[in-house]
Amino acid sequence: MEEAVKQVRALVFDVFGTLVDWRGSIAREVAAVFGDRVDPFAFADDWRAQYQPAMEEVRAGRIPFCKLDRLHRRNLDIVLAQHGLQDTAEAVRVDLNLAWHRLDAWPDVAPGLQRLRARYRLAPCSNGHIALMVNLARRNSLPWDAITGAELARDYKPKPVVYLSAADAFDLAPHEVMMVAAHSSDLEAAAAAGLRTAFVARPDEHGPGLGEAQAAAAVDLSVTSVIELAERLETQG
Amino acid sequence: MEEAVKQVRALVFDVFGTLVDWRGSIAREVAAVFGDRVDPFAFADDWRAQYQPAMEEVRAGRIPFCKLDRLHRRNLDIVLAQHGLQDTAEAVRVDLNLAWHRLDAWPDVAPGLQRLRARYRLAPCSNGHIALMVNLARRNSLPWDAITGAELARDYKPKPVVYLSAADAFDLAPHEVMMVAAHSSDLEAAAAAGLRTAFVARPDEHGPGLGEAQAAAAVDLSVTSVIELAERLETQG
Repeated sequence: MEEAVKQVRALVFDVFGTLVDWRGSIAREVAAVFGDRVDPFAFADDWRAQYQPAMEEVRAGRIPFCKLDRLHRRNLDIVLAQHGLQDTAEAVRVDLNLAWHRLDAWPDVAPGLQRLRARYRLAPCSNGHIALMVNLARRNSLPWDAITGAELARDYKPKPVVYLSAADAFDLAPHEVMMVAAHSSDLEAAAAAGLRTAFVARPDEHGPGLGEAQAAAAVDLSVTSVIELAERLETQG
Repeated sequence: MEEAVKQVRALVFDVFGTLVDWRGSIAREVAAVFGDRVDPFAFADDWRAQYQPAMEEVRAGRIPFCKLDRLHRRNLDIVLAQHGLQDTAEAVRVDLNLAWHRLDAWPDVAPGLQRLRARYRLAPCSNGHIALMVNLARRNSLPWDAITGAELARDYKPKPVVYLSAADAFDLAPHEVMMVAAHSSDLEAAAAAGLRTAFVARPDEHGPGLGEAQAAAAVDLSVTSVIELAERLETQG
């Protein structure tokens, strides 16, 4: 393992859940818009529940690639109807859809990335599109070298092309790149594509105790924060 | 003009010549490798002279899109032969080709971009590929939000798709993006695609007095440095 990790030149990151608290951030915006008309956490969970099925339409080739904003908007309309909020005005829907551009990072992320930046090229490898990633980076001081991920690959994770295009963007072989994520399925797909993998535990991602506390797949490193990832790579890498 | 400039949300930049001194930097590396076996500036000029014809192969659809490193390498082999340096070893060629990743920025660039960053999204919109842009950014402290340009568009400037894909990457309309370049032909193509344009004079790009001192096309702004661009946009934007 140590030898493999020493060859890593770039780290690419899952974002939703791994770096940013989508659930708390979406709930905050939903509460600001609808007050006590809705349970904001239930709304956030239901919105997120539409995420994989919507991307599957693209991955399966049933619809052409489109940016995540468009899928989020389709999903928002579904969830508003589920929650009896069909009367929500178009302008409100447009702005609420952009809540995904205003997510807050977990507190360890900005200082952890800043440390990692001294030794590695860094990029998101998210299903979020470039503009969304740029807005999250500006909001949370994420020091990216480039924005890789779904929009560059024009397909959605866990399709191998997304991981491979991220490595290729840095002129690196897959084994020179480490995928960092809080989700075992993401890391399993990255490893199958030849990347190294680091699991970051976000045990409260879906609510207290409702995230992955441990990796369910074989990974090269397992940590509890991006700061710990920096520490581990500084001693092992 | 003022009203048009006020709508700009992102600035995208030509890089070779506009932000970095390719000629002086390439000549420096050529001199380090070949000493007095070659005129380093003539070699740099000859290498650069192969640049447009090589990209034209891609633009015209005669060869599929490939990263600029591959075109630079093809061109390097031609220029080595022109200069009687056919005996250059493969390892030397590989490293010299990466001289394009080690170009130095003009002195106004980093401080100018740092100022512009407070008000605008910033990205290169270059024919250089993502890894090359990342290496130039690291070397010269260029604070990009994302890397747009040829690799994202999978075609080469001045094809309109390159400018349009840069605007789209920021979720912006073309008229909300300003292309910044030292070359009138680049700005003319960007304007035809609907972008705003700023000309930065680099009168010594091709040697003393051998660059464009003034824009030969209609532009929204004309300046002599990136710092002046920041000043102008702070008062007009």
